[in-house]
Amino acid sequence: MVLEYVTDPSDPRLTDYTRMRDVELRKSLEAERGLFLAEGEKVIRRAIGAGHPIRSVLTTDRWLASLRDVLGDATVYVVSDEVMAGVAGFPVHRGALASMERLPLPSVETLLKSLAGGPRRLLVLEDLADHSNVGAIFRSAAALGVDAVVLSPRCADPLYRRAVKVSMGAVFSIRYARMDDWFRGLAQLREAGFRTLALTPDQTATPLDAVALTERVALLLGAEGDGLSSHWLEEADEAVCIRMSAAAMASGVDSLNVVAAAAIACHDLMRSAG
Amino acid sequence: MVLEYVTDPSDPRLTDYTRMRDVELRKSLEAERGLFLAEGEKVIRRAIGAGHPIRSVLTTDRWLASLRDVLGDATVYVVSDEVMAGVAGFPVHRGALASMERLPLPSVETLLKSLAGGPRRLLVLEDLADHSNVGAIFRSAAALGVDAVVLSPRCADPLYRRAVKVSMGAVFSIRYARMDDWFRGLAQLREAGFRTLALTPDQTATPLDAVALTERVALLLGAEGDGLSSHWLEEADEAVCIRMSAAAMASGVDSLNVVAAAAIACHDLMRSAG
Ligand SMILES: C[S@@+](CC[C@H](N)C(=O)[O-])C[C@H]1O[C@@H](n2cnc3c(N)ncnc32)[C@H](O)[C@@H]1O
Ligand SMILES: C[S@@+](CC[C@H](N)C(=O)[O-])C[C@H]1O[C@@H](n2cnc3c(N)ncnc32)[C@H](O)[C@@H]1O
Repeated sequence: MVLEYVTDPSDPRLTDYTRMRDVELRKSLEAERGLFLAEGEKVIRRAIGAGHPIRSVLTTDRWLASLRDVLGDATVYVVSDEVMAGVAGFPVHRGALASMERLPLPSVETLLKSLAGGPRRLLVLEDLADHSNVGAIFRSAAALGVDAVVLSPRCADPLYRRAVKVSMGAVFSIRYARMDDWFRGLAQLREAGFRTLALTPDQTATPLDAVALTERVALLLGAEGDGLSSHWLEEADEAVCIRMSAAAMASGVDSLNVVAAAAIACHDLMRSAG
Repeated sequence: MVLEYVTDPSDPRLTDYTRMRDVELRKSLEAERGLFLAEGEKVIRRAIGAGHPIRSVLTTDRWLASLRDVLGDATVYVVSDEVMAGVAGFPVHRGALASMERLPLPSVETLLKSLAGGPRRLLVLEDLADHSNVGAIFRSAAALGVDAVVLSPRCADPLYRRAVKVSMGAVFSIRYARMDDWFRGLAQLREAGFRTLALTPDQTATPLDAVALTERVALLLGAEGDGLSSHWLEEADEAVCIRMSAAAMASGVDSLNVVAAAAIACHDLMRSAG
């Protein structure tokens, strides 16, 4: 560990950590530099465990000790609570942030090959924009035994700080890949033997409990406002719904939040897998 | 409708709407004045439909038309996009905010009496701190046919702006009440004939699928960090878990997000109710 004490929030050594509140700025900054931020001891440990090299760590004297054993020869910027809050723009969870390097993602093809043979469960997220939702879905997917996640080209980044945090680090324990071709995306899954089920609030679709489950199943989930694209809805092998209360529908609650829908569907799949 | 054009973001007529980003300030402001904010046309309509009187509306020329038919003789402050953003501190969903009056909540006793007879499903939230989680749980509860929600004395407010928004207005279609006695809270539910099931990630608890469901069931859910209090865990009739993947548990994903857990449990209850 190389300790460097920093007293000025605008010190150039801290630029990996600045403007965390500005979503757009952070996204471009993280993409350009190939970095992401892990927040809090647990998540930092899991990111290190998953093989992500550390660029640097930002913490305070108080929290430094909790990380000492895993930091190796990383550079650690030690600041006061005030500087920490000034840099981040909000109270940092358990006083520690690490700037980590991204690892190259596998292609969808490579991911699917690694899943050859046996019953497999995939989640496929189309253009989800909300990082908290993506993080929460990764957490459910991991907890409920999903084998991997495939993202559409424009789906929000699971390594964006808020997604990592909400996932409780599950983004480090479940494999995922990003499609580079949205239009051909489902065809590729079908060619790999997956039955594609499009989850939709449309109550005339096949109810989830009545779906014939095959060995290899991919569940497709859509974004909060728009739901799945009509292209994917048509391309999918079957449209499937979770039944909702007729009274609620009449009063205007006409869909589940995507995190809730994903959890229910994964749970059903896991149970049916025995 | 009484239209008033306002050009200064610090105009005192707009104080119901200021500092929306400051959670603590907003909470005390909303409690003191007995108001809450509804955001966007749909949610405003549903709040009006649920009988909440309008204190005033803040909108821009562009969005005014979409609400014209429901505003009656309400005072409407019309501002430019810049003033709107300046007052709220962030882009307002579909350019309209309404400051509405709260209605008195029923006591738990009154709520339970209104649920007399027949199979009933309750959710009970203990000290959930996150408004988005509370909102998302209300949405699932409504969509999945839960009859009512009971909140512990310190549980986050379902009418806080963020909760209302995430619930998609479901906070207006499902009845709820707040306990005034946390310690005696479960006893009161049991006296009203509810079997209390404590949902816990503890995998040695009874699996949800193996639970004997009676006519009247109350599902207890705990907060993100701490889970249910030991008092409630002990007081409950039974501790119940949703099964999770052993591999995920080993890698540190040892619980579901409370929104996911609530959705799965409500869905199971609804299915078992036929
Ligand atoms: C909030 S919904 C999208 C609503 C959008 N208006 C629509 O009609 O699809 C977000 C996603 O959650 C899933 N979802 C929501 N409610 C569902 C239900 N009852 N059954 C199955 N999937 C559901 C779907 O994948 C959907 O694309
Ligand atoms: C994030 S969890 C709380 C974790 C906390 N460390 C604990 O041990 O309870 C929040 C709430 O979600 C519910 N929950 C989470 N995972 C669950 C599971 N696998 N089975 C049943 N309930 C669960 C419980 O009600 C819990 O109190």
